[in-house]
Amino acid sequence: MKSKLAFALIAVSLAGSAAAQLKPEDAIKFRQSGYAFMAWNMGRIKASVEGQFNKDEVIKAANAIQAIANSGMGALYPAGSDHGTGWEKTRVKPEFFTNKEGVAKVAMAFNKEANEMAKVAAAGDAAAVREQFGKLGATCKACHDDFKIKH
Amino acid sequence: MKSKLAFALIAVSLAGSAAAQLKPEDAIKFRQSGYAFMAWNMGRIKASVEGQFNKDEVIKAANAIQAIANSGMGALYPAGSDHGTGWEKTRVKPEFFTNKEGVAKVAMAFNKEANEMAKVAAAGDAAAVREQFGKLGATCKACHDDFKIKH
Repeated sequence: MKSKLAFALIAVSLAGSAAAQLKPEDAIKFRQSGYAFMAWNMGRIKASVEGQFNKDEVIKAANAIQAIANSGMGALYPAGSDHGTGWEKTRVKPEFFTNKEGVAKVAMAFNKEANEMAKVAAAGDAAAVREQFGKLGATCKACHDDFKIKH
Repeated sequence: MKSKLAFALIAVSLAGSAAAQLKPEDAIKFRQSGYAFMAWNMGRIKASVEGQFNKDEVIKAANAIQAIANSGMGALYPAGSDHGTGWEKTRVKPEFFTNKEGVAKVAMAFNKEANEMAKVAAAGDAAAVREQFGKLGATCKACHDDFKIKH
């Protein structure tokens, strides 16, 4: 039993390191891609909120944001990815790697509002979508304020 | 009534053009982001299929791919985006903009297998995930073969 447990622990550890084998520049590229794709989808919801409301557009956009938010992007911040270039030079602040509590707080707020956005989108009420879009955008901004270097 | 209808048509048309107002370079950047983010998630499923199977990882990855596949990325190929640079120079072939039937065929196959991938991931059977991963990857390749310029 002892050796079985030891083997299991080694297997888990190897799987963990295989998952962590992303090169910093690839991790940076993938996380920049996730944020950029969410930005496109936030723009689509904004267009619906400010112009002609398009329920189908809002649903597709909100579902994409929700799935990306829940995809586990934390894995895209491996050691060594505090500096470096993916599609472009990373703008992550050093605080992201030291203030774990602060990161967890903004990440959880973002996930909560992204999940709620998908629910509200499915219901299709334009006024509710507008309100939830504001709440979701505020969680994006909170993270950018604390952890993203301004241009 | 006539003027109401005319107004409605103008509103729809304006909303349509607002949605289409993406600059070619932004559209290219957003679509490159979507594909890159899916590539990360395909890699995560591959790691589970080839190494230690991690149901939770596979579900999160498959859900992200499914939502991106269903997000309506066709809108990211506006007129003028056949050439240009987003994160990098676009590698789309001219045929993408002329062979609408061919594009629809590969896009529908990809969506179908991405939706199936999410279902299979949720069920959590490693062998089924491996098989479905192969089918999904084949639809990626089919599109790349026909519509993406090789490096």
